[in-house]
Amino acid sequence: MRVWIITIGNEILIGKIVNTNSAWLAKKLTSLGIDVKRMITVPDEEDEIIQVFREGVQKADIVISTGGLGPTFDDKTSEALAKAFNKKWIINQDAYEEVRRKFEEANMELTEARVKMAKMPEGAKALSNSAGTAPGILLEIESKLVIALPGVPREMKAIFEEEVEKILSDRAPHKCYREVSIGVTGVPESTIAPYIEETMKRYPTIYIKSHPRGHETLGPILEIHITTYGTTKKEAKEAVEKAADDLIEKIRKLGGKITYSEQ
Amino acid sequence: MRVWIITIGNEILIGKIVNTNSAWLAKKLTSLGIDVKRMITVPDEEDEIIQVFREGVQKADIVISTGGLGPTFDDKTSEALAKAFNKKWIINQDAYEEVRRKFEEANMELTEARVKMAKMPEGAKALSNSAGTAPGILLEIESKLVIALPGVPREMKAIFEEEVEKILSDRAPHKCYREVSIGVTGVPESTIAPYIEETMKRYPTIYIKSHPRGHETLGPILEIHITTYGTTKKEAKEAVEKAADDLIEKIRKLGGKITYSEQ
Repeated sequence: MRVWIITIGNEILIGKIVNTNSAWLAKKLTSLGIDVKRMITVPDEEDEIIQVFREGVQKADIVISTGGLGPTFDDKTSEALAKAFNKKWIINQDAYEEVRRKFEEANMELTEARVKMAKMPEGAKALSNSAGTAPGILLEIESKLVIALPGVPREMKAIFEEEVEKILSDRAPHKCYREVSIGVTGVPESTIAPYIEETMKRYPTIYIKSHPRGHETLGPILEIHITTYGTTKKEAKEAVEKAADDLIEKIRKLGGKITYSEQ
Repeated sequence: MRVWIITIGNEILIGKIVNTNSAWLAKKLTSLGIDVKRMITVPDEEDEIIQVFREGVQKADIVISTGGLGPTFDDKTSEALAKAFNKKWIINQDAYEEVRRKFEEANMELTEARVKMAKMPEGAKALSNSAGTAPGILLEIESKLVIALPGVPREMKAIFEEEVEKILSDRAPHKCYREVSIGVTGVPESTIAPYIEETMKRYPTIYIKSHPRGHETLGPILEIHITTYGTTKKEAKEAVEKAADDLIEKIRKLGGKITYSEQ
């Protein structure tokens, strides 16, 4: 099960904001056993948004976007989503009821900019936003899921945890993700490289990746991630631990020091 | 002048690491007057890397990647780059000399994994890495530039500032980027939305984007970014300041409070 995470927003593309939403979603999806195959950030431009949604639905099973659901003129995600899949862009009754109630409770008039947050592609399901005003959007396109969430991290997280997680968990392949991180000093990455490859060949369900944190020749520090998916938690745990033990033994033989090993 | 920023690495896609490299590069490129049109993260898979480089060169003028230049089996960027543009993947003499010298100085043998860091697509220029071992790669494809940098932030930044910035600055359209950030409390985004649109229409060179930081109906806090490109610094500065003054006046009329205004 493959997912694309799409971020919509000029603020990311000018480097004003670091894309923490994608990382947060990726962690959640990975723990559900869903593979994040691509992350893409596009500007607040309708053509770009349409194009990336269409490509996502062609190449992935699930497309999750963040950003562009608010009341301003450059919040274009919902309308672009309708255009991408040739749907009418109409007021969604559940979304309207939610938006109307929130502004009524705040004694605020239901202006055009506010009603806009209740407009969705025809056939979409509104995802309730307990942390803000713009509801999320769930759209099914030829058995693929498209989920649009707001860009405000607090709102994005609330909708994901309260509305989306259960839906994805029901579809997810029930693989159990597990990882071990090892800290290493005193051995350059280029020295360990062949042993990592060898360990991965011995344990075909295991993926190992090294991340240099020091300086290769002047003072090598590495963080090594050993990850796997298993059909049960126990199986996944045992597999990463076995591979980690093996690799740690080799690193020690190479003169390296293990600074930590954690799950 | 359009640029795509490509990130290569599973660690981003599983949410283990937040993509700060792309944000750093985006800020640099924006200040050079270059438009970042897309950011894409792909896994350490040859096919995916090949595909995204090809698409990048088709749709952008410059493609900058980070990640996948190290000595391990899953550092695949350089070889994928050669395959993407039908180039031989060979030892680059400048890169080889740099890598050889570094390992010699550290009294370390020049193993296959280490020589790998000197292999590049035929015709590429090696970009010296003063902060690590793997040199960056500069490749010109039909007058488009492809630049591959390491994923280690310190090394990526060093190569960019010492080797890449000058090259891009020579090609950049010499637009001066300028921005003003305004903090607002007491006015919901949906109330300001029409005034932002109106202000942008009055100042066609200006882009304004609001970012909600509070709660729309319960306690609105906004950060508003007013940005522009000008042909001179002075022109850009005057334009954003004028638009900011206008908007601030409107926000105050709506009962909002300006908590800060900074360039």
